Amino acid sequence: MLIGNHERLVMIGDSITDCSRARPVGEGLFDAIGKGYVGVVDALLSSTYPERGIRVTNMGTSGNTVRDLKNRWQTDVLDLKPDWLSVMIGTNDVWRQFDSPTIKESHVYLDEYEATLESLVAATLPQLKGLVLMTPFYIEPNADDLMRAQMDRYGAAVKRVAEKFGTLFVDTQAAFGRVLEHLYAGTLAWDRVHPNQIGHAVIARAFLNAVGYEYGKGM
Amino acid sequence: MLIGNHERLVMIGDSITDCSRARPVGEGLFDAIGKGYVGVVDALLSSTYPERGIRVTNMGTSGNTVRDLKNRWQTDVLDLKPDWLSVMIGTNDVWRQFDSPTIKESHVYLDEYEATLESLVAATLPQLKGLVLMTPFYIEPNADDLMRAQMDRYGAAVKRVAEKFGTLFVDTQAAFGRVLEHLYAGTLAWDRVHPNQIGHAVIARAFLNAVGYEYGKGM
Amino acid sequence: MLIGNHERLVMIGDSITDCSRARPVGEGLFDAIGKGYVGVVDALLSSTYPERGIRVTNMGTSGNTVRDLKNRWQTDVLDLKPDWLSVMIGTNDVWRQFDSPTIKESHVYLDEYEATLESLVAATLPQLKGLVLMTPFYIEPNADDLMRAQMDRYGAAVKRVAEKFGTLFVDTQAAFGRVLEHLYAGTLAWDRVHPNQIGHAVIARAFLNAVGYEYGKGM
Amino acid sequence: MLIGNHERLVMIGDSITDCSRARPVGEGLFDAIGKGYVGVVDALLSSTYPERGIRVTNMGTSGNTVRDLKNRWQTDVLDLKPDWLSVMIGTNDVWRQFDSPTIKESHVYLDEYEATLESLVAATLPQLKGLVLMTPFYIEPNADDLMRAQMDRYGAAVKRVAEKFGTLFVDTQAAFGRVLEHLYAGTLAWDRVHPNQIGHAVIARAFLNAVGYEYGKGM
Amino acid sequence: MLIGNHERLVMIGDSITDCSRARPVGEGLFDAIGKGYVGVVDALLSSTYPERGIRVTNMGTSGNTVRDLKNRWQTDVLDLKPDWLSVMIGTNDVWRQFDSPTIKESHVYLDEYEATLESLVAATLPQLKGLVLMTPFYIEPNADDLMRAQMDRYGAAVKRVAEKFGTLFVDTQAAFGRVLEHLYAGTLAWDRVHPNQIGHAVIARAFLNAVGYEYGKGM
Amino acid sequence: MLIGNHERLVMIGDSITDCSRARPVGEGLFDAIGKGYVGVVDALLSSTYPERGIRVTNMGTSGNTVRDLKNRWQTDVLDLKPDWLSVMIGTNDVWRQFDSPTIKESHVYLDEYEATLESLVAATLPQLKGLVLMTPFYIEPNADDLMRAQMDRYGAAVKRVAEKFGTLFVDTQAAFGRVLEHLYAGTLAWDRVHPNQIGHAVIARAFLNAVGYEYGKGM
Amino acid sequence: MLIGNHERLVMIGDSITDCSRARPVGEGLFDAIGKGYVGVVDALLSSTYPERGIRVTNMGTSGNTVRDLKNRWQTDVLDLKPDWLSVMIGTNDVWRQFDSPTIKESHVYLDEYEATLESLVAATLPQLKGLVLMTPFYIEPNADDLMRAQMDRYGAAVKRVAEKFGTLFVDTQAAFGRVLEHLYAGTLAWDRVHPNQIGHAVIARAFLNAVGYEYGKGM
Amino acid sequence: MLIGNHERLVMIGDSITDCSRARPVGEGLFDAIGKGYVGVVDALLSSTYPERGIRVTNMGTSGNTVRDLKNRWQTDVLDLKPDWLSVMIGTNDVWRQFDSPTIKESHVYLDEYEATLESLVAATLPQLKGLVLMTPFYIEPNADDLMRAQMDRYGAAVKRVAEKFGTLFVDTQAAFGRVLEHLYAGTLAWDRVHPNQIGHAVIARAFLNAVGYEYGKGM
Repeated sequence: MLIGNHERLVMIGDSITDCSRARPVGEGLFDAIGKGYVGVVDALLSSTYPERGIRVTNMGTSGNTVRDLKNRWQTDVLDLKPDWLSVMIGTNDVWRQFDSPTIKESHVYLDEYEATLESLVAATLPQLKGLVLMTPFYIEPNADDLMRAQMDRYGAAVKRVAEKFGTLFVDTQAAFGRVLEHLYAGTLAWDRVHPNQIGHAVIARAFLNAVGYEYGKGM
Repeated sequence: MLIGNHERLVMIGDSITDCSRARPVGEGLFDAIGKGYVGVVDALLSSTYPERGIRVTNMGTSGNTVRDLKNRWQTDVLDLKPDWLSVMIGTNDVWRQFDSPTIKESHVYLDEYEATLESLVAATLPQLKGLVLMTPFYIEPNADDLMRAQMDRYGAAVKRVAEKFGTLFVDTQAAFGRVLEHLYAGTLAWDRVHPNQIGHAVIARAFLNAVGYEYGKGM
Repeated sequence: MLIGNHERLVMIGDSITDCSRARPVGEGLFDAIGKGYVGVVDALLSSTYPERGIRVTNMGTSGNTVRDLKNRWQTDVLDLKPDWLSVMIGTNDVWRQFDSPTIKESHVYLDEYEATLESLVAATLPQLKGLVLMTPFYIEPNADDLMRAQMDRYGAAVKRVAEKFGTLFVDTQAAFGRVLEHLYAGTLAWDRVHPNQIGHAVIARAFLNAVGYEYGKGM
Repeated sequence: MLIGNHERLVMIGDSITDCSRARPVGEGLFDAIGKGYVGVVDALLSSTYPERGIRVTNMGTSGNTVRDLKNRWQTDVLDLKPDWLSVMIGTNDVWRQFDSPTIKESHVYLDEYEATLESLVAATLPQLKGLVLMTPFYIEPNADDLMRAQMDRYGAAVKRVAEKFGTLFVDTQAAFGRVLEHLYAGTLAWDRVHPNQIGHAVIARAFLNAVGYEYGKGM
Repeated sequence: MLIGNHERLVMIGDSITDCSRARPVGEGLFDAIGKGYVGVVDALLSSTYPERGIRVTNMGTSGNTVRDLKNRWQTDVLDLKPDWLSVMIGTNDVWRQFDSPTIKESHVYLDEYEATLESLVAATLPQLKGLVLMTPFYIEPNADDLMRAQMDRYGAAVKRVAEKFGTLFVDTQAAFGRVLEHLYAGTLAWDRVHPNQIGHAVIARAFLNAVGYEYGKGM
Repeated sequence: MLIGNHERLVMIGDSITDCSRARPVGEGLFDAIGKGYVGVVDALLSSTYPERGIRVTNMGTSGNTVRDLKNRWQTDVLDLKPDWLSVMIGTNDVWRQFDSPTIKESHVYLDEYEATLESLVAATLPQLKGLVLMTPFYIEPNADDLMRAQMDRYGAAVKRVAEKFGTLFVDTQAAFGRVLEHLYAGTLAWDRVHPNQIGHAVIARAFLNAVGYEYGKGM
Repeated sequence: MLIGNHERLVMIGDSITDCSRARPVGEGLFDAIGKGYVGVVDALLSSTYPERGIRVTNMGTSGNTVRDLKNRWQTDVLDLKPDWLSVMIGTNDVWRQFDSPTIKESHVYLDEYEATLESLVAATLPQLKGLVLMTPFYIEPNADDLMRAQMDRYGAAVKRVAEKFGTLFVDTQAAFGRVLEHLYAGTLAWDRVHPNQIGHAVIARAFLNAVGYEYGKGM
Repeated sequence: MLIGNHERLVMIGDSITDCSRARPVGEGLFDAIGKGYVGVVDALLSSTYPERGIRVTNMGTSGNTVRDLKNRWQTDVLDLKPDWLSVMIGTNDVWRQFDSPTIKESHVYLDEYEATLESLVAATLPQLKGLVLMTPFYIEPNADDLMRAQMDRYGAAVKRVAEKFGTLFVDTQAAFGRVLEHLYAGTLAWDRVHPNQIGHAVIARAFLNAVGYEYGKGM
């Protein structure tokens, strides 16, 4: 497994990451890490590798777009001095274009999205031991759905940035795709965006797979 | 993995199982399955084996002893017609002896515990495809601690019943033991009984291991 | 307009009809009629035809299927002695098949749905001046979506019943279809089922159109 | 219909406009537009003309007089750059004279009212594609009632301003008058000021009529 | 003053009497008597005539009509064995005719009203030392207002009953009439029905005047 | 009656005056004047002299001593430009000496009390048409009770100030004394300080007597 | 100390005993024993004599008189099979005579009080190892105060019963008397009935003294 | 007893001291002193020595370490000018090392702990009549438990400081030790840190013993 002894992993994103984490920093007692995929990642890492003392910190904030990440990057990423960082952003960048079509100032279009993500990666990568870029996703199997198609374009942008900088890459849309062959979207999320525990397990497994997690270890 | 297509798994127990499950039946929308190890088991099963359509139902009730299980066994186990059943009980049977020593009618001593568990297993096993008996646990590494020692006696009783009837058996105390070599008890549970997410992952992994769960499947 | 002086219109259905109506009867002071399409229908009828003194009563109940309607038909329809009745049911009959696939006792399949609806219509029609059967709907433009396709089958059943008994018929799915050519589904309902005010206006307009409502009257 | 593609309509006023709109701007998801006539206007416009993408924004604030509108005009009207604007104000300017007769600093008398309204119109009209001035109203059919008579004087002032600047004009008092011929005032509003849904439909219909809304369009 | 030493006065009516009195009996510690005119009557009687030990009990119930009084007369009047009784009822009997015109089963028309009141008086008077019949009122100065005119007909019925049985009679409408010459209705009650403290003082003064209360006594 | 047409009466004091008045100014709609003696005074004045248009404002603040009054005198008295002013203060000045004997900085001893009251009167009297100084009180009939005896000393100081400046004077302790001959202290106030409605009527009657109120006027 | 190993002490009474104890039985986890003198007694007994395993149960109920104790004596005393019992009742028997003088059915006069207490003692004493009768008290130093004088009469009745049956006796009024020489009544209880922690310590010390508690034991 | 007439005792610490004390200063009416050992100390001192007028002030703050005490020492200790001071700190300094092992900035290690405590004592002692240093404790009888062993090291540091400066010293761990010979840890505190009332009595008795409290005095 790639994350080493006493290393710190910060996971940043939007409401899918947030899941009621504590403020100002999502870590510590009483499930301050939140009840979503970050909690699952931390629980599986800590129960499987208790000897490593890995510190997982949840910095997701509900409603955020990449524009919001940029504004809080200094305090919420750089100041925490992570060894590892994961970023999963873009849901709201796309969603507002579809659920609030007339409120255009709330939309973050593809150019701004990709450029902002790229600049954040460029500025941060030198300080990291590892960076995991995760695509946003839309729990909708129909690739012709307008919002799904747009989300795929943002996911492709994440992939381009990951490849350009050589970071780890997690295709969460593909991970959901495998499940959606058997389960209807509504079984995972009523609004096709905020997953229940099954959906969070999908995300967590995709992330853990990327960092070389071995489930059976120590059993 | 042992649990087959469209089979139903009922998991019964006390507050460690309950974790705010819905009433009267802990399954369905909005995380009605609760936020503890049952939710983790369901999330990992459903995300890993979506094609199987396994139905997981949480029937834990906070504060319960084996005496309480017996009283609700007909409605809460038999009437649900499970294919698979897991039972994890005994925490409160033991705990009341230590946190309420003068209130003796709240104690369930070892004889009653083992006899009751055995009678429930005997009556139910013929209708099941699989039964998983899980020990109670106490998140305390010192085997000489009075309550830990007593809990171990109850765990041994579970093992005897499992062996007598040839059921699957999960030693949750041993599972926690491996983690407690590296983490202090208070990191997993402030009261050494109710685990945080890490502790629930310990239980879930132990259960899933017993039923042949393959983490990496389908990724 | 078909509804005459001092006639009573009862509108029954599920949560889309309910919208926080008062109990036990949804009518009277303080918007007891609820805040959904029934409220819109009442508001437009009463403001346009104040001289008619039409009495509109909301008898929707959240979560209901046609099976539930049957159970409360005597108290919630027949005892109220409506002159006019509208029925819009089926969303939950279908939805549970998709969001809770393993909980099969919560599913109401097409045969039971159509037979139940037909028996309710047959028993009630003789006592009515007018009956409006409305299809259920799913705010999803992709007709190949599994749940949309199933919902269309239920809508077709409503149409068959309406034609068999010669009642008024409202195709709410078609009404949403015209709007979905221009607005993404998420603009009308985050879960594609429970509409915002725009969606309720779509339903109300479709209903009012069927009963011959003249918007410009009296202005 | 006068309001064109992708144009923005801001509707400002007091509690009759507000109706629990979101802050700081009343538009967007979760019925942020409020549950009064602004919501009805938006729902009918969006469901009838979905292809136009009209943006409706509710800027009503409970308790406001024209004096309050003046204080927040820059942020709450001009900064939003509306294409269309509706103003319905005056209820509180008049009401305080009658329900709080001794608290004279809370009264806004006719001179101040008309002058302030005129100055706001003069400053804003050049930037608009359309302006709709709506009278305040009092849901009391007796024109000799002291407060109704005073409200009529304020309504006449609105009409003078509308005529002076050639804006659209909506006589809400007259719209209620047609309904009050058949319904007692208390059926529409217990306090004769804050309407229920029927009363809001009266206002919405009067407004929509003024901007050339065609109800039957697209059905 | 007519009410003697250690005599009990029960005051029954609707929400204007109720004013958050305690259940099941409105008397005793912590202002259980309610915050309306009954509280004012008790406060002025007890502070002016502390030596008399008069027991005042509030049995008003919000929403009641004379039909409701009849249903609870045994438990709420006769069982309490009052020496004195006051009755003020009729507001809701009339109001529902105007605010809920289509819900006719909620209306209590004049014949039923007068007959019921008369039968209650006939059955109770023999057991009382004194009975005070109070008219209902509507805080509206325009005698041609439809609801005011109807309320006056009910008040006239109260007067007929009072005269027939020779009871004390309080014309609350007249008492409000003297105040309404100077104060607008909205200063006393936003809905013209539920008075503020000033309005309750109007009622209390009218009642106290009828029983011979001497304000200046003992000062 | 001394208070004339359109004159303003400000009543200041501690929790006995406050009684949940509105902030920042205790007057206006929805019983903003509070539910204590100020409300009773306003209700009796307004219902008896509706033609005068007297404005009553409650500026009591719970927990206040004369030291607190001094600190807020500019904003809470002078800025309101009263014609009439009443002051009832001293309860907390004394009470803290008895319920918190060790917390000496919370005590306001007699010298400071009298000097402060005198300076406030001297600075304000020239701007008033009338000033009513009311003693604090303790609802305890035993004049030898330590706290009652101390309260009497503070009441005597109020009398000295009233006589020195020739203001109106209300001896509330004496007013309660007349009632306490017949009612036990606990009937009026569980803590002998905060009266129920009967006790507030005692205070209101004493005040109204001092300003020449005629109860029977206009009936 | 008189209470022996593994003996059970039940303490019954009114609100002074209750202090938010758990229902139906006041003992066990989470300070279910309440926060008043019963909690203090239990805390001092358990911390001083941990080896004895004494079980203390709080059965106080707010508002109770001796009449109420009689009604629940079977379930709340006898069924619990106490070895030791304490009874402190009478406050409400007396208080209602003074705070609700007109509501005579709420008063329990001295004859009924003493006879009821005596019958309860007679019926229970044979089953007990020890019985402690405690007087009610009133935190008022003036023995001529009407309610204090009446409370003293009830305390004398308790003493008579204690002497007749030879039970232990605690004079709580005398215990408060020693403190009231130095502290004003209001320092211990705002209403002279419900003590703060200091007052509960007074009661607990008086009780513990009666059963031979040795404070310094084991330190 | 060492604490003299009218002297002030300030007790500072963490959540074990705090126990819901009032802010900003924990003293005065309504049990503002909190419900833990400080309340017990005050209750026993005031009920046993009412003539001394001792002022006890609770300045505990939940979650505090010695680092936090240092930051608020000026306002929360020095500004209050205590005669006597007690300090019990260290629980959180140690606990965070065990329940949050990866969040190292929340740990206060032994060097910093002892040096900070020493500097606070050195700066404050000259202004005090008496200083009581109390060890932190962990309600765990197993001296080899990792956290207990660490807590013992911090307790030893407190002892070193007490000896160096000649202050009074309370070994709370030893006081709990005597009780833990007979009661399981969980009977006193579910998390072995926050005691129930029995545990607070253990602390209070240890403190009172150190200052020469005589329980039987005055009885």
